[in-house]
Amino acid sequence: MKPPKPDTFRATDDEARGLARKLIAEARSGALGLTIDAEPFVTRIALAPTSEGVLTLVSDLAAHTYALRATPDVSVLVGEPGKGDPLAHPRLTLQVRAQFLEKSDEIKAQYLAVHPKAQLYIDFADFHVVRLDVREGWLNGGFGRAYLLKPEDLKKPNT
Amino acid sequence: MKPPKPDTFRATDDEARGLARKLIAEARSGALGLTIDAEPFVTRIALAPTSEGVLTLVSDLAAHTYALRATPDVSVLVGEPGKGDPLAHPRLTLQVRAQFLEKSDEIKAQYLAVHPKAQLYIDFADFHVVRLDVREGWLNGGFGRAYLLKPEDLKKPNT
Repeated sequence: MKPPKPDTFRATDDEARGLARKLIAEARSGALGLTIDAEPFVTRIALAPTSEGVLTLVSDLAAHTYALRATPDVSVLVGEPGKGDPLAHPRLTLQVRAQFLEKSDEIKAQYLAVHPKAQLYIDFADFHVVRLDVREGWLNGGFGRAYLLKPEDLKKPNT
Repeated sequence: MKPPKPDTFRATDDEARGLARKLIAEARSGALGLTIDAEPFVTRIALAPTSEGVLTLVSDLAAHTYALRATPDVSVLVGEPGKGDPLAHPRLTLQVRAQFLEKSDEIKAQYLAVHPKAQLYIDFADFHVVRLDVREGWLNGGFGRAYLLKPEDLKKPNT
C-alpha cells in the first residue's frame, strides 16, 4: 500500500518498533477488516500472539470466514482505546495475509495457551486456526506519531 | 448486503434492539473499516453518539479521510471486548454512509459534549465532523446470538 502523504510518517526507530511489538504481544482480540459482498466489513476476532505468529480461530458460521478464504489479504487493528480521548492511545493496523493452518495438536496448544476457554470449541469441525502473516504495519502512537513498519520491524530481536 | 447464511441469524426482538442501542450509546470509539488502495484497512476513530446521530471527527492528515470522501459506504465496529474470551462479549458492526457536515457551533457542541478534550483541535481547518448514517447493523451478542438489524431497530423508541 502506498500511503497518500508519506511525509506524515516519522522515521522508524526502536521506540516505535518496541511499542508495536508490545501492542501485538498484548492483543487478545482485534478488529478484522475485509470485504464482504464488495463492501468493507469490520468484525471482532480473537487473537493469540504465539511463537508461530499471530493466530486466530474462525468458524464456518461467520461470514468473514468465507471472505478470508476468498481474499486472504486483510487488515487487523490492535490496541485498546482506554480511558479519555481514544485518539491519544496507541494502536496498530496490521496489513496481513490469512493462512489457514492444519489444526495440529501443537498449533491447538499454542492457541489454547492464550485462550484456554476455546477448549470448549476448538475441536469442532467448523472451527479453523488461521495465521495472520504481517505484510505491513501502520502504527499510530498518538497524535502526530505515525510510523510505517515492515514485517522485520515487528519481530522480536531474537526471532 | 446479503448475509451468506441467513439461517444463522435469530429473529430480531426487543432484547436485541436494546443491546444494540446500548452498544451505540456507550461507544466512544470504533474500528473503521474501509478500502485504501484497493485493500481492506481498519483504523480507530473517535465516536460521539448524539441526537444528531453518531458523529466522528477526522483529519486530512489521515489516509482514511480521503478514502471516506471517495467511498462513503464503510463499516464501523463498536463494543469493547472486556475480559475473558473476547468472542463472548457483545459487539455490533454498523454498515454506515459517511456524511461530511458543516462544522456549525451546534454540531461542534454536540461532539464536544462527548469528547471535551477535542476542544484542542476541533477548530483546526483540516479537521472535519462526519455523521455516520446507519444502513444496517450486524449484532453479535455472544456465541450463537447473531441478529441482522435495520436502521429503525437502532433508533430510540422516542426519536
